[in-house]
Amino acid sequence: MSEDRYQKGIKNLKVMNPQSFKILEDNLKDIAPDLARYVVEFPYGDIYSRSGLDLKTRELVTIASVTTMGGAQTQLKSHIKGALNVGCTKEEILEVLIQMAVYAGFPRAINGVLAAKEVFENIKSEK
Amino acid sequence: MSEDRYQKGIKNLKVMNPQSFKILEDNLKDIAPDLARYVVEFPYGDIYSRSGLDLKTRELVTIASVTTMGGAQTQLKSHIKGALNVGCTKEEILEVLIQMAVYAGFPRAINGVLAAKEVFENIKSEK
Amino acid sequence: MSEDRYQKGIKNLKVMNPQSFKILEDNLKDIAPDLARYVVEFPYGDIYSRSGLDLKTRELVTIASVTTMGGAQTQLKSHIKGALNVGCTKEEILEVLIQMAVYAGFPRAINGVLAAKEVFENIKSEK
Amino acid sequence: MSEDRYQKGIKNLKVMNPQSFKILEDNLKDIAPDLARYVVEFPYGDIYSRSGLDLKTRELVTIASVTTMGGAQTQLKSHIKGALNVGCTKEEILEVLIQMAVYAGFPRAINGVLAAKEVFENIKSEK
Amino acid sequence: MSEDRYQKGIKNLKVMNPQSFKILEDNLKDIAPDLARYVVEFPYGDIYSRSGLDLKTRELVTIASVTTMGGAQTQLKSHIKGALNVGCTKEEILEVLIQMAVYAGFPRAINGVLAAKEVFENIKSEK
Amino acid sequence: MSEDRYQKGIKNLKVMNPQSFKILEDNLKDIAPDLARYVVEFPYGDIYSRSGLDLKTRELVTIASVTTMGGAQTQLKSHIKGALNVGCTKEEILEVLIQMAVYAGFPRAINGVLAAKEVFENIKSEK
Repeated sequence: MSEDRYQKGIKNLKVMNPQSFKILEDNLKDIAPDLARYVVEFPYGDIYSRSGLDLKTRELVTIASVTTMGGAQTQLKSHIKGALNVGCTKEEILEVLIQMAVYAGFPRAINGVLAAKEVFENIKSEK
Repeated sequence: MSEDRYQKGIKNLKVMNPQSFKILEDNLKDIAPDLARYVVEFPYGDIYSRSGLDLKTRELVTIASVTTMGGAQTQLKSHIKGALNVGCTKEEILEVLIQMAVYAGFPRAINGVLAAKEVFENIKSEK
Repeated sequence: MSEDRYQKGIKNLKVMNPQSFKILEDNLKDIAPDLARYVVEFPYGDIYSRSGLDLKTRELVTIASVTTMGGAQTQLKSHIKGALNVGCTKEEILEVLIQMAVYAGFPRAINGVLAAKEVFENIKSEK
Repeated sequence: MSEDRYQKGIKNLKVMNPQSFKILEDNLKDIAPDLARYVVEFPYGDIYSRSGLDLKTRELVTIASVTTMGGAQTQLKSHIKGALNVGCTKEEILEVLIQMAVYAGFPRAINGVLAAKEVFENIKSEK
Repeated sequence: MSEDRYQKGIKNLKVMNPQSFKILEDNLKDIAPDLARYVVEFPYGDIYSRSGLDLKTRELVTIASVTTMGGAQTQLKSHIKGALNVGCTKEEILEVLIQMAVYAGFPRAINGVLAAKEVFENIKSEK
Repeated sequence: MSEDRYQKGIKNLKVMNPQSFKILEDNLKDIAPDLARYVVEFPYGDIYSRSGLDLKTRELVTIASVTTMGGAQTQLKSHIKGALNVGCTKEEILEVLIQMAVYAGFPRAINGVLAAKEVFENIKSEK
């Protein structure tokens, strides 16, 4: 059944963010491969496969959370890319980030928008 | 035009959370009425009246942000109520809060769910 | 195998903190029983059953983390109790909390020590 | 010389906040008296006795910091009282707290103003 | 009237930090120009133009807040520059940052002082 | 006696982390040498020389705290090195960092492990 969770997580990651997870897995493989496995099993296997909320909304609330905590620009950019992958528009992502000015303060919101800018520009240059 | 922002904010608050704002306004009126006015003008007048994201999603990302920062249970409960007022289901709210275990950690997620529990029970007892 | 994780978690919780988990489980059962299940499976089933660090040290680093984040006094008190349950001395717990003044600042350290005080007094009065 | 730091700290505390420190010292005396001593020696002995910034400004920046971190309402109220004791006006304190809406977000600013409200009302009722 | 807020904000920014705002505005113009506008209108138009606290103290409490939240070095450096622009001395800024060791912990205070160092060196090399 | 604290701190730093402190001291010497002195006196002189908890556990709880706060990668890497210097194994350090996924969330845990990876690789390449 744990296998099952891992399989479910990998399946979600293939849709949501295969590139970012590949980078993370490569980074962790020699030092803490279990943490990469937990990422697959718990967030992507257990949580993102729950019903009750679509993947688009799940990525937007993740973006809100990671923007609010601060100091996690790599993960924020990864989830901005993930949000695009599951069908969020750039506008929706930016609206979430701008709204964070109210709750997490302007510095966090600005850092969030600058992360989005970087992701959007990378995507454009890849094409 | 600032009047306009205030009017827009009040209009949004009437839909989103008239009870919570009334309490806040009463609390602030003798000490910092300008802060209550800013709440109307900036979050509710400027931000929540933006297009690009519906009010339901806006309340869910706010819940994610306020859960993540911690130490703001009153505001969290107010936005859980606001989310219900704009049409979010209890299930959607709980899904956001449970998902926060991944990003903000289990203590924050648990505090979020307990806030929701209190709001849901208050609503039931009011009926 | 997921069953296995749950069983491992329950086994750890019986040693580490059966009372606090019972309260949490009761609190969550009507609203988010899955979150209680995740608490058993991920922290207690996956993490606390890992080798490489004894349970005493695991509880002390948890206390450091929860003290640092702030706004989670209930969870902090629960882990202070858990630390005692796995054999940490009061002195060891207090040393961790005092040390937090350096990294998380004096307000967090003071809130941590006051949480410990409450736990220690409850235990004394239970006897 | 350490004695000297303690004496300097006590001297500052007598001016800045003798009541709050008395409560803290009583709370800590049976459990972590060293933490109370460090409070005297490091913040009040070393830092608040530095030149280069007057005590009024020092209390205002402390209020900004403690409001921003959140989850430390007791310490925040203590420093609001301290700010009044060294000559800050209520208006100055409120201006700092309102300004925090920009950087720490509205929930933190509101919690800050509500802390000030409580302190101001207690002072009034004491008279 | 909203125009008015924008004008007031621009006027304050010209005194307080024209260079940093120019960079921010350029960064945001293609992606979220409204966020740049809100920066002008709310912090600089509404808040920094309030009476009751001089701009020097306002910048010092902002520095305390942004140092405490962490993960916002760009904004911190911008406000350190802003503080110098409105007449704070280097010593006053450093005193605030050093004091943060007490409330936000040593890592935050050190990161704050290193931000100040960078700003002060840039200014020197510009001359 | 203050001399005494400084001497005790330097003695601890020689065992715990002479290289990192040298870098910090050099960085601060022209701008805020007192902050470097406080680092010696308070954390290393007062706290790390307390009995009741061995240096290994002290470094592990510091790692937990600094990982949880986020936005302090330099200090985190410094304490990971410090932990190795006082005899913690790589495995123990990684176990603390992985455990942080539960309390501080996955982004903080991942940033923690990546900091450890960098430290471990630097050490290897130095040999």
